[in-house]
Amino acid sequence: MRAVKKLLPNENIIYLGDAARLPYGNKSADTVIRYTLESSQFLTSQNIKILIIACHTASSVALPALTTLHSLPVVGMVDPCLPALNSKNGKIAILGTHATVSSQIYQNALKRLSPNTSVSAIACPLFVPLVEEGFIDSPITQESIRHYLLPVKEREIDTVLLACTHYPLLQNVIQDFLGAGCRLIDPALNCAESVKTILHSSGLINNQTEEGRSVFYTTDDPEKFQRLGATFLGKCIPFVEQVKL
Amino acid sequence: MRAVKKLLPNENIIYLGDAARLPYGNKSADTVIRYTLESSQFLTSQNIKILIIACHTASSVALPALTTLHSLPVVGMVDPCLPALNSKNGKIAILGTHATVSSQIYQNALKRLSPNTSVSAIACPLFVPLVEEGFIDSPITQESIRHYLLPVKEREIDTVLLACTHYPLLQNVIQDFLGAGCRLIDPALNCAESVKTILHSSGLINNQTEEGRSVFYTTDDPEKFQRLGATFLGKCIPFVEQVKL
Repeated sequence: MRAVKKLLPNENIIYLGDAARLPYGNKSADTVIRYTLESSQFLTSQNIKILIIACHTASSVALPALTTLHSLPVVGMVDPCLPALNSKNGKIAILGTHATVSSQIYQNALKRLSPNTSVSAIACPLFVPLVEEGFIDSPITQESIRHYLLPVKEREIDTVLLACTHYPLLQNVIQDFLGAGCRLIDPALNCAESVKTILHSSGLINNQTEEGRSVFYTTDDPEKFQRLGATFLGKCIPFVEQVKL
Repeated sequence: MRAVKKLLPNENIIYLGDAARLPYGNKSADTVIRYTLESSQFLTSQNIKILIIACHTASSVALPALTTLHSLPVVGMVDPCLPALNSKNGKIAILGTHATVSSQIYQNALKRLSPNTSVSAIACPLFVPLVEEGFIDSPITQESIRHYLLPVKEREIDTVLLACTHYPLLQNVIQDFLGAGCRLIDPALNCAESVKTILHSSGLINNQTEEGRSVFYTTDDPEKFQRLGATFLGKCIPFVEQVKL
């Protein structure tokens, strides 16, 4: 959302956070698909012109079901990332949730696109609760990074995709651990650029000059959403409405 | 469940784990109440004679709603623990989820029962994902224990209640950190004893001599439930059925 707002400041955005059922990343594909379809139906009922699945887990497992159900354009996190996944030494790591890693979506895509690249897909499930609890630069986070990412360092991987919405909040600590020679990719910008391209090519872009409005919905406590959402968005969220899915 | 099976080996048990919506502990009281009522309705529809809420978060916030909805006996985790909460030096700590700590249920009960006791209620939200991910004796867990429990050590608290179903799996590492002078209470036995007392006094106890049967339901992936459930139960779970709530 932050990247989309920056790149497309005139667009109106409706954001839904399914906080009552999070995290998606350690649940089964069937459950994630069901939750994502329910969430998407809430959004499409608001007369939107494009649906963005700003969650790697949901994008990894639910995109086919979403594009079958809806006729409007649907943008996930995975496809927009793929062009950025090039490595000088042919070694790439994908960091994601259990569900994203198990889906094999990145591993399969890279096998097709650059068959000589070695891909390490690493589930880092503790990163989500660490971010949610605000442990950004704590010894606990540093121990967790060492645990999950020591193999990345040892294999001298030079390109690492942060394939979960929460992980870019740990970007600095991860970069410190892996060193400056390793390129970290935050896929938010790639996703926002895909959205811009689709809106342009389909004539759906908003050419108004006034700043777009944002509306926020959550399925759990609005106050908690405001607090945590501000960390991600980098600014205050004045009003959040609770909905039941 | 492990404690109930041990104390009441002849009883038949129906177990439901709401894995598709866990964790409850960092969600709002309203959401936890809704989920708990839905889960309880699935169980009461199976013609049970007593309902055990084997979750501190749900017990802390949803018990009044449950006893209003159902006419059968309902046993939570909180009331059975209270008699065990006595401290030699008058200092007690309650370790639980955000929701359990915020509910103030233990703090208020102890204020009534032993007004001279000093109570420290500490939310330890990382403990649940650490246990779920199998980090029992890892440096990450040790750092987390230090982070949450250093105040317990510094205040020389002598009695600590593990007020979340996941925490007793960390009992040994917590005990190592706090030292042998600190008494840790795993409330499972207190809960099981309450169940036994209620069944006896209401004439509902099963006097058969054959071993009771257990049936397991989960709202998410049965295989994951089998794997993690075996850690808690201390033995293999042969079959789990998935249900939708």
